Amino acid sequence: MLAPQRESSVPLQRQLYDAIRRAILEGGLPPGTRLPSSRGLAAEWGLGRNTVVNAFEQLAAEGYLESRIGSGTYVSDSLPEEFLQVQKDEPGPSKVESKGQLPVLSRRVEWYASLQMTPDPESPIPFSPGLPALDAFPVEQWRRIAARQMRRITRSALSYGDPRGLDALRRSLSSYLNTARGVRCDWRQILILSSSQQALDLCARVLLEPGEKVWMEEPGYLGARGALGAAGARLVPIPVDDEGINVEEGIGRAPEARMVYVTPSHHFPLGSMLSLGRRLALLEWASRSGAWILEDDYDSEFRYAGQPLASLQGLDESGRVFYVGTFSKVLFPSLRLGYLVVPEALLDAFTSARALMDGHPPGFTQRILADFIGEGHFSAHIRRMRGLYRRRMKVLVEALREAFPEGPTVAPVDSGMHLVLDLEKEADDRALSRTLGDSRIDAPSLSRYYLADPQRKGLMLGFCGVPSHELKRGTSVLKRVLEEQAFQD
Amino acid sequence: MLAPQRESSVPLQRQLYDAIRRAILEGGLPPGTRLPSSRGLAAEWGLGRNTVVNAFEQLAAEGYLESRIGSGTYVSDSLPEEFLQVQKDEPGPSKVESKGQLPVLSRRVEWYASLQMTPDPESPIPFSPGLPALDAFPVEQWRRIAARQMRRITRSALSYGDPRGLDALRRSLSSYLNTARGVRCDWRQILILSSSQQALDLCARVLLEPGEKVWMEEPGYLGARGALGAAGARLVPIPVDDEGINVEEGIGRAPEARMVYVTPSHHFPLGSMLSLGRRLALLEWASRSGAWILEDDYDSEFRYAGQPLASLQGLDESGRVFYVGTFSKVLFPSLRLGYLVVPEALLDAFTSARALMDGHPPGFTQRILADFIGEGHFSAHIRRMRGLYRRRMKVLVEALREAFPEGPTVAPVDSGMHLVLDLEKEADDRALSRTLGDSRIDAPSLSRYYLADPQRKGLMLGFCGVPSHELKRGTSVLKRVLEEQAFQD
Repeated sequence: MLAPQRESSVPLQRQLYDAIRRAILEGGLPPGTRLPSSRGLAAEWGLGRNTVVNAFEQLAAEGYLESRIGSGTYVSDSLPEEFLQVQKDEPGPSKVESKGQLPVLSRRVEWYASLQMTPDPESPIPFSPGLPALDAFPVEQWRRIAARQMRRITRSALSYGDPRGLDALRRSLSSYLNTARGVRCDWRQILILSSSQQALDLCARVLLEPGEKVWMEEPGYLGARGALGAAGARLVPIPVDDEGINVEEGIGRAPEARMVYVTPSHHFPLGSMLSLGRRLALLEWASRSGAWILEDDYDSEFRYAGQPLASLQGLDESGRVFYVGTFSKVLFPSLRLGYLVVPEALLDAFTSARALMDGHPPGFTQRILADFIGEGHFSAHIRRMRGLYRRRMKVLVEALREAFPEGPTVAPVDSGMHLVLDLEKEADDRALSRTLGDSRIDAPSLSRYYLADPQRKGLMLGFCGVPSHELKRGTSVLKRVLEEQAFQD
Repeated sequence: MLAPQRESSVPLQRQLYDAIRRAILEGGLPPGTRLPSSRGLAAEWGLGRNTVVNAFEQLAAEGYLESRIGSGTYVSDSLPEEFLQVQKDEPGPSKVESKGQLPVLSRRVEWYASLQMTPDPESPIPFSPGLPALDAFPVEQWRRIAARQMRRITRSALSYGDPRGLDALRRSLSSYLNTARGVRCDWRQILILSSSQQALDLCARVLLEPGEKVWMEEPGYLGARGALGAAGARLVPIPVDDEGINVEEGIGRAPEARMVYVTPSHHFPLGSMLSLGRRLALLEWASRSGAWILEDDYDSEFRYAGQPLASLQGLDESGRVFYVGTFSKVLFPSLRLGYLVVPEALLDAFTSARALMDGHPPGFTQRILADFIGEGHFSAHIRRMRGLYRRRMKVLVEALREAFPEGPTVAPVDSGMHLVLDLEKEADDRALSRTLGDSRIDAPSLSRYYLADPQRKGLMLGFCGVPSHELKRGTSVLKRVLEEQAFQD
């Protein structure tokens, strides 16, 4: 057996335990072997006798040793020798799947991996679309509310919670959604989730069977594609134009689809609004055919002319629309709270499924947010951000026009958190986006969001997450890279 | 059109917007109708002209109205009249699915609903199993760390995070798992999740295809049954005895199973430990047949004699074991953090899937917890709770022995957070549990946890979540209910 390592940080009792355990597992001490007495071993190792007894007791509790009254301590007789062979190879610090033999996983895995959704964990860079102005978040107000909630900790605040979310938060949110987003719902229809991603995942799991068809906006959001595809849905790309998703085309291609995923207020990534005529046509089709509508209202709060546009959900009379929202854009992403408004008839089904996905949302975060909304900070923050983002958008438009006087054309947008820089149809916007990434510029290509062949090429440029000087700096890097590219062609 | 309601809390501009919108949707104002001038309407309603203009502009932006230069404002000509019919019925405050017509949902829904997992959101009552002593949580230390983390808010702390979790937390946790739980892993193999439930769900989705067989401990944990069944697995109940799951029986019933779910340290709900011989047999079978082992180590920290038992994962040499843990039992449930240790070869697959389920774990909670572990509060809290729970367990055993001198037999347990009160094989433990629920006593029946016919009857009595006097009070209610029951028989 090994000698004790006195200079090691591992306690001696643990060293003794490890040494005996390993000797048994590797066959050095076969089943039935009698161990030296604890007294003898203590003397040999220079340990207190209690240390040895404790190690023996732990090994006995775990089944390695057994003591026979009046006779001493033995390696358990019942250990199956044939299985001890398996343990003989000394493992590395972390184990690896035996090489050459690929593990068999579910089909979902390839699908998930194909989307490459792992976000960059680094600090913000120009022009990450969808990243809010974290430098302008009212940290002080948030901190004050958090401190107050911490002072009020009660036993029930620490305990298990309602899988649907905290009542107080659902009530605050309901009144906001009703007033500001034209959503018509009772507060009990709201489920608090960790993100819009979880809302999409939940809908996919409750509403879809493998093989059922889903209309996807083309181009469209990768997160939705990931969640719906993972449920085994067959995604049918439906083209998007200036009036949003082409409903007639959808009915032509897949009239029997079970679901449609839409971003009606502000199409992701192109930015168009779903026209009123198409909204009505979509609702009529869904109601007639029994299809579900997933309305993802991810950044609709930021409209720079007039009020935000009313939701599609508010027009629905037959309980077909699921309204998905998130706090990642209007507050901050690491908060991890989003929500789903569920048609009343389906509340129980969604609640059971939600509970078996991950229980319920975290207690404190919900309490802080409920107060933040209830005290008016939420609406005030959105108003301030609307002003700030409008200014940043203008800075970016100006910078782009100056950088590219001969085109591409850049027009101000009236809503959302990014604009699209159109490129020629022949451009390799994916390669361009990668090149920009090497210079720490985040500008996803339009091509990335197409399921079929890209019909438009371009770059998505977010203007909210970084201050004006960074937008200008980003623009000059963009200009340099585009010019180098043109030179190479 | 409606007259303005000056006493209403709804702003007049919104009232005007709603009235015109509804009139158009219900056909009162058909497409092409000319609206009164904003000046005229302002006079009629007694409003400022800007109020009317703003309402008109919002309606125009949403596609209800269009203005023709030099001619005025019209209801949009392009609105499809046939779809406007759909809107005619006035909806209630919340919409309902048309009656009699059941919505078609995925097959998962019935499965989820059958488990009735919705937890009681009320405050703790005797004897909720698995509920920790929230009255003994070191709120002050937690608050202090939280306040410090709040003072340090940086932009990157608010931003998107790593889907695998915060490095600092994964490192702290890794060293704890290694030392205290005998888990052998590199910190990079740890994924931070919202709960052990999410860990089970993630494993089910990445590892299983519909129709594949999974060994389930019989009786066994409902949350695991929910997650694995929802992925379409065929659950094969394998009997559990004093040595834990009967591996030989498993190999007999379903040698080709893709996965086994086990609670080796402390079987849920019966409390037995998986013997060393069976551990080795299970690992050998998994390695030979390419099956996965889900080790749920939900409450193993609480062992009342000696150290906690080493994990099964630490014995695994072929990368087949997924180790699942949670902070709900050792800290508090509303925290919503759990974790999964993934074999190295599968890290990428799990990370992609995790990102598309709900992004990443929340920022602050992870930062607070990383400090709480790193500063030693975590280990100290577990030690304190071990002492407290041992005392509470003894109080309950004493109270039960006093209440039932003629049996059922009650023995102290050497680990876990509950004990089992055995009942006769003929007893209707489910009915008994319901009756107890009516008296605000939470004591789940053993029957509930069987997939096939229950082989044992009894009640699960948790002893951690409430103080001694509540354990005594609960015991006298239990005595009364059991005596009434016996009287009725």
